[in-house]
Amino acid sequence: MSWLRPLAAGLRRGPFRGPRLAPPCAPRAFAAHPQDQLAEGVQTKEQLGTDERKKNFVLKTPKGTRDYSPKQMAIRERVFNTIVSCFKRHGAQAIDTPVFELKETLTGKYGEDSKLIYDLKDQGGELLSLRYDLTVPFARYLAMTKITNIKRYHIAKVYRRDNPAMTRGRYREFYQCDFDIAGQFDPMIPDAECLKIVHEILSALQLRGFLIKVNDRRILNGVFAACGVPDSLFHSTCCTVDKLNKATWEDVRSEMVGEKGLSPEAADRIGEYVRLQGGLGLIEQLLQDPKLAQNKLAREGLGDMKLLFEYLTLFGIVEKVCFDLSLARGLDYYTGVIYEAILLQPQNAHKEEPVSVGSVAGGGRYDGLVGMFDPKGRKVPCVGVSIGIERIFSIMEQVVEASEEKIRTTETQVLVASPQKNFLNVRLKLISELWDSGIKAEMLYRKNPKLLNQLQYCEDTGIPLAAIVGEQELKDGVVKLRVVATREEVNIPRETLVKEIRRRLESSRALLCTAA
Amino acid sequence: MSWLRPLAAGLRRGPFRGPRLAPPCAPRAFAAHPQDQLAEGVQTKEQLGTDERKKNFVLKTPKGTRDYSPKQMAIRERVFNTIVSCFKRHGAQAIDTPVFELKETLTGKYGEDSKLIYDLKDQGGELLSLRYDLTVPFARYLAMTKITNIKRYHIAKVYRRDNPAMTRGRYREFYQCDFDIAGQFDPMIPDAECLKIVHEILSALQLRGFLIKVNDRRILNGVFAACGVPDSLFHSTCCTVDKLNKATWEDVRSEMVGEKGLSPEAADRIGEYVRLQGGLGLIEQLLQDPKLAQNKLAREGLGDMKLLFEYLTLFGIVEKVCFDLSLARGLDYYTGVIYEAILLQPQNAHKEEPVSVGSVAGGGRYDGLVGMFDPKGRKVPCVGVSIGIERIFSIMEQVVEASEEKIRTTETQVLVASPQKNFLNVRLKLISELWDSGIKAEMLYRKNPKLLNQLQYCEDTGIPLAAIVGEQELKDGVVKLRVVATREEVNIPRETLVKEIRRRLESSRALLCTAA
Repeated sequence: MSWLRPLAAGLRRGPFRGPRLAPPCAPRAFAAHPQDQLAEGVQTKEQLGTDERKKNFVLKTPKGTRDYSPKQMAIRERVFNTIVSCFKRHGAQAIDTPVFELKETLTGKYGEDSKLIYDLKDQGGELLSLRYDLTVPFARYLAMTKITNIKRYHIAKVYRRDNPAMTRGRYREFYQCDFDIAGQFDPMIPDAECLKIVHEILSALQLRGFLIKVNDRRILNGVFAACGVPDSLFHSTCCTVDKLNKATWEDVRSEMVGEKGLSPEAADRIGEYVRLQGGLGLIEQLLQDPKLAQNKLAREGLGDMKLLFEYLTLFGIVEKVCFDLSLARGLDYYTGVIYEAILLQPQNAHKEEPVSVGSVAGGGRYDGLVGMFDPKGRKVPCVGVSIGIERIFSIMEQVVEASEEKIRTTETQVLVASPQKNFLNVRLKLISELWDSGIKAEMLYRKNPKLLNQLQYCEDTGIPLAAIVGEQELKDGVVKLRVVATREEVNIPRETLVKEIRRRLESSRALLCTAA
Repeated sequence: MSWLRPLAAGLRRGPFRGPRLAPPCAPRAFAAHPQDQLAEGVQTKEQLGTDERKKNFVLKTPKGTRDYSPKQMAIRERVFNTIVSCFKRHGAQAIDTPVFELKETLTGKYGEDSKLIYDLKDQGGELLSLRYDLTVPFARYLAMTKITNIKRYHIAKVYRRDNPAMTRGRYREFYQCDFDIAGQFDPMIPDAECLKIVHEILSALQLRGFLIKVNDRRILNGVFAACGVPDSLFHSTCCTVDKLNKATWEDVRSEMVGEKGLSPEAADRIGEYVRLQGGLGLIEQLLQDPKLAQNKLAREGLGDMKLLFEYLTLFGIVEKVCFDLSLARGLDYYTGVIYEAILLQPQNAHKEEPVSVGSVAGGGRYDGLVGMFDPKGRKVPCVGVSIGIERIFSIMEQVVEASEEKIRTTETQVLVASPQKNFLNVRLKLISELWDSGIKAEMLYRKNPKLLNQLQYCEDTGIPLAAIVGEQELKDGVVKLRVVATREEVNIPRETLVKEIRRRLESSRALLCTAA
């Protein structure tokens, strides 16, 4: 199922593909792609008669996509709530853009990865493509609206005709949760806030052990220049460096020399730098480095990196951040600081197949992208971060599975029930009163359901209360309120029922808060 | 901009195109479609050189689509919250499906409307199409998972290559908010709940004056049979009847006789029925009608309609519901009750161009659709409703515009500010504390912003509080808390700042609640 990559099978990039993730630097082995075999099958089917085709119809979602079941949606809602409340805590506004863009809008933004863009069929009219990330549509939006100053978030699905690895959270249709700050500001203040956001979200999601790697494109370019790499090879060298994450230095070096045409000496000099990791101390050390000191870009990058670490110290998150010279992130549009958050250990040690460790967020500064859309090339500096949500979903799902936590997929508070026959109309009237008072209520869609079935439904779906009306209750003007967990039953006058339900739900919520 | 329809220009269907809306019964005049002219333009551009193309690049979203600005998103969030909380109040679970489906999944479900489906380009692999509604994917999901019993909601964008009328809320990419109940239940109980939901949502959105029309496919078919229409013409007659909504009976009659080949006598007999509107009285009257009484389907339909009106009476919503024999809704898959909610009057009388009155929700029973996907044809009875959200957005936007209500696009509670230079680090430390305590806080991304600019930012974006630190405050271990609206300022000890901010926000919320 896996396709060849230049270095080794172990080098396949991690499941998180944020808008700022490096595109692979070598063309992909599309000929060996499993979907090509599938294509033939489809064509054969097309030639069959209608009946035959109906019989052969495969009931499935498209390759690399999935449905979300109610349980998965409940987990997804939980994760989204955490992320959105963080974005809002930082004063972000929401925007949305169409799922497809003019094909031209995406052209020339993703390098080699352009192959992975889904195009729409030419049915007359404009040529369209599904969005590949949320960053390019954001830049298009800024250029179109001439907005020069905005802090926005955007949570939406993006599309990549990539080789899916669904158990590891890599899909062809997947969510990105982007937060970006556009505008001309003083250095590294918005950049530091993006890292603070990553820290807040990963902490709030209780992902155990994460690390945020940071680097700067200007530092990398300075290093390449200092090591004698010609300008023309900066980009491809950058892509090779990016693989240090998953390959040994020997493999990376041999790609540099063998495939990219660097001199062995230049490669060795690069090796001295890109294996460095550290904090403020390393920044200070490199600021003193005579070779780098001669390079204007490197000096700027290191100066800003120092500033960034100062701000991260004030934010109290510096111990989770590592200045890592091997971080490269290949997308063309980065111009300054870049970062990536990785999980350090399996999240679920008890399972036989732990979710593999990898990248869950990434981003950086892209000061030139909006200018590519502006007719006069006016630039709007931007920095942002993308949370790789599918991967986090996969982890959450497995954590929930392992914890045996029972996830409710509805929020129903009360089941309206009756112990006797011919009480449908009474139930309909009562449930209608509850709905109109804002109570979340259900009833069985049966004329005469058995009481046992009604109570069983509460147990199965986690409904905490049952409001029971029978002949006696109707005569007495009361409703029997049953607490499903304790089986306690108490008669409540009909006119105070809503109040009583609210009181009970609130006190049980309070109880939960105290326990937590 | 408009394209020809069989009857008259005035007959173009309303902006709401729910999953259950009738497809047009005659082929559309695609040759005259404006997008075909556009297609030529694009092809010409393709032949130009890259530079030329870049110069000619049009900065826009695809035809029939739009971006949502932060203000529009704030309105959208408000509308969605209303709808989702109603769906949850009725115990619905959420699901999600991919934006595209196998082309085959959509084949044969939409009749003439299939022309409007967006196909993806064949890039090798499966042949895919963008979803056209949420109903067919839901049926596919049920067949695939073998779920026979679920109450689910799904809010997502769907895609139709239709002629857009964006000022009236008709887009090529638009949201549908669907609620459906699948399962074998006693008659009309879930059907009545769907109408209750429409009523609750339109009431909660404070849309002035709406009416829910209901009919039943079985009644219509019974009427056609009783009027001597041959079985083979039921569907096309149904489509023509659907136009009574916007055309006179004379126009509809002449289409029936002239284009559809009905006898003038049959048409006249149909005319007697389909112009009937009423409530329980009309149902009773038709139950006594000798011609209809002979027809099994009509008897069933009328019996169920009577039951429905009984349940709607118990729900207290019958006065907003009208049994209307002209309602037809052409989609093939309806098998029983059908309904459509319309707005009766312009929502915004003060504007020169009021939003045109039309359909905002629709739905019905489709007991055969899941069986189309099941390999053994097993049926899962379903009934559901779709809220036409774009139209409601358009109305809301205009209502907000007219009311001059100031919509906040962020939820920021506190701006962290300083009156002096060189306080960036102090601000960073303070804002970090606020974020970590869950307070929604912003600061200007400047090293030394002017206090006036900082306070102006609060005014502009509606931030209620400013937390100000200068030299004196720092020395005294306090923060000056300023209420932006009243300009009241009070020094708060730093260690109780978070508590004080919370207290003030809560009491102002309480004040708002009391006022409302």
